[in-house]
Amino acid sequence: MTTAIPVSEFQERVNKVQKIMERENIDSLIAFSHEAEPAYVRYFADYWPSFETTAVFIPVSGEPALLIGPESLTYASSRSKISKILRLTDFRESAQPEYPGADLSTWDDVFAEYPTKRLGIAGFHMFPHTIYTDMQRALGDSEVIDADYIVREVMLIKSAAEIACLRESARISEIGFKAVVEKIKPGMTEVQVVAIATAAMLDAGAEAIGYPIWCCSGPNSIQAISRPSLRKIQEGEFIHVQIGAKVSGYSTSIARPIVLGKCTQEMRNFMQLGCDAENLTIELMQSGTRASDVARQVHGYIKERGYGDTILYGPAHGCGQMECEYPFVETSSDIVLKENMTFHADMFLATPEMGFRFEDCIVITKGAAEELSHFKREVIVL
Amino acid sequence: MTTAIPVSEFQERVNKVQKIMERENIDSLIAFSHEAEPAYVRYFADYWPSFETTAVFIPVSGEPALLIGPESLTYASSRSKISKILRLTDFRESAQPEYPGADLSTWDDVFAEYPTKRLGIAGFHMFPHTIYTDMQRALGDSEVIDADYIVREVMLIKSAAEIACLRESARISEIGFKAVVEKIKPGMTEVQVVAIATAAMLDAGAEAIGYPIWCCSGPNSIQAISRPSLRKIQEGEFIHVQIGAKVSGYSTSIARPIVLGKCTQEMRNFMQLGCDAENLTIELMQSGTRASDVARQVHGYIKERGYGDTILYGPAHGCGQMECEYPFVETSSDIVLKENMTFHADMFLATPEMGFRFEDCIVITKGAAEELSHFKREVIVL
Repeated sequence: MTTAIPVSEFQERVNKVQKIMERENIDSLIAFSHEAEPAYVRYFADYWPSFETTAVFIPVSGEPALLIGPESLTYASSRSKISKILRLTDFRESAQPEYPGADLSTWDDVFAEYPTKRLGIAGFHMFPHTIYTDMQRALGDSEVIDADYIVREVMLIKSAAEIACLRESARISEIGFKAVVEKIKPGMTEVQVVAIATAAMLDAGAEAIGYPIWCCSGPNSIQAISRPSLRKIQEGEFIHVQIGAKVSGYSTSIARPIVLGKCTQEMRNFMQLGCDAENLTIELMQSGTRASDVARQVHGYIKERGYGDTILYGPAHGCGQMECEYPFVETSSDIVLKENMTFHADMFLATPEMGFRFEDCIVITKGAAEELSHFKREVIVL
Repeated sequence: MTTAIPVSEFQERVNKVQKIMERENIDSLIAFSHEAEPAYVRYFADYWPSFETTAVFIPVSGEPALLIGPESLTYASSRSKISKILRLTDFRESAQPEYPGADLSTWDDVFAEYPTKRLGIAGFHMFPHTIYTDMQRALGDSEVIDADYIVREVMLIKSAAEIACLRESARISEIGFKAVVEKIKPGMTEVQVVAIATAAMLDAGAEAIGYPIWCCSGPNSIQAISRPSLRKIQEGEFIHVQIGAKVSGYSTSIARPIVLGKCTQEMRNFMQLGCDAENLTIELMQSGTRASDVARQVHGYIKERGYGDTILYGPAHGCGQMECEYPFVETSSDIVLKENMTFHADMFLATPEMGFRFEDCIVITKGAAEELSHFKREVIVL
């Protein structure tokens, strides 16, 4: 059986948001998503778009509606847990076909049905300016605010079903990583390494890869964010592999550096420091701890060991529907960790010549965090 | 050797845009992209983002700059054909980490260097409202316009190198489709069918899949846009497979319906009509033809054969860096086809119960269009 979120939980999420909307005096909330960041819409509707964009419209009371583009009706109908679906031209794909003759709804129709004096938008920082302008024309002088904080408040603590999805994602990601370790060979391209992980994870029950996963090697290993290239991996260099499976919308990550053949002591020391720093991060992340304290202690530890210049960010970030979501564990974070928050401990370190990441998914508890993947955290030299 | 765009061609593209900017009295142009639609930035810089967003800033004269988020510097530097790179907070990932201590540029810095009275934005319909607002604060009362039409004018006719990339993409997509035909079995999930195609294409030299490719089967086959699910494919139903490889940024598509085992005469007739309608589309698409005439004739043909109700759109759309890009072949299109425009003939037809797509990439010539894939267009019953 597929690990999934029960239908009732989607309705509960809408109810929780509606309660906060009431507290915040917001009449309507629009949660926006596109192909690369489907989290908000999937959270409420279980639908995730491709090509076209989408939004969930939540009134402060009553039933929500799913807003989609002209071509997604049959797809959205097969996935959405929200039965009311409206098609709007504004959610068409970026190349903007015209759809002559199609019978589509307008923002005037939407706001006639849901009178709105104060509107919140979640996914505010992705929300396209042209849709905003069209929408505001229909809204008149109603107020529009950034409502990411409202959805984040509901998303922050994970349910048992959500943690089960993340656990299954971690299990499948581990299968993907083991396939890489088994099959990786000098002379393969970075893309071919990604192909091994992708095929293994999709075959093992993932619905998709969790994000554009990558392998980057040698001079490319210093890339904090990357995409695999057609460069051939070689012996004696860092090969940074970062993969993750998506299960019912939830994505985890496993990242490790791999060295094929000869590994210098300098490389080994650097990797071991990264591994130790991630171990420390996970050890520190317990219910009641202030996130900024974790970041300061871990960064302090790395500096003490002489690798201060290799820090870019971190050492952890929230996860769930997004591989990387709020909240962040940074030196500026004021959040206090709570039970059933989920994080990726994310230890990316790089000199100008070589870099790597250790990354694993954890659940915060009162004591030692639960690690969702059982893939051993160690220096991998093959 | 990798099929790719020569470095000089990126500079030529910038020069062409600058000439049009001069004609249109535009001081600066911002071409915006995100993870799911990297086309505009890749077109000028060869860089395509992941997680973070990005833009190319083109002044009417002088060198362009690549604008990126805080974490993408090493990755962008390894790919970008534009050497000047600026990091701005506005291009950070959607979950919005804070990056305490990072030294980032601001829009004030950008416009101090590139004084701008009239700004064009390409990718206008994806451009986030919050970035627009931040940017406009720095711009003061300068004018901002939708500049998609400027970039489209340059992108519309493909160069020999671009067509070579599309040809290579079609060759690899064909390898992916043949792997599916060879290995597909009743009881596989839709996702597992996608895994076969993905692994084969990445292994054969694709840099990535061209878009979120899919297989949708049985009741899901009616989805014009889809994502593969964990549904198990069965004998005697439509299995709609839609795949494509990305080569140096360029994506083609091959789509075919497949039936395993028993195929009713009704299903066979419907598929044959789709195949015939795509053949007609390709036959009609020649240099000098008006796009709307093609759409009217093809739709007329489908209606005559009694399948008028199964039309959703089409029957063709431009392609290149986007699997689906301007211009569209719709009954409302006023464009005239020219040599070296590239299209996907895209014949999607669906009743309320069953649907499928035939799709193939073509290059417009003076005579019969060149088909880039040699994968036979026929009813596939296995």
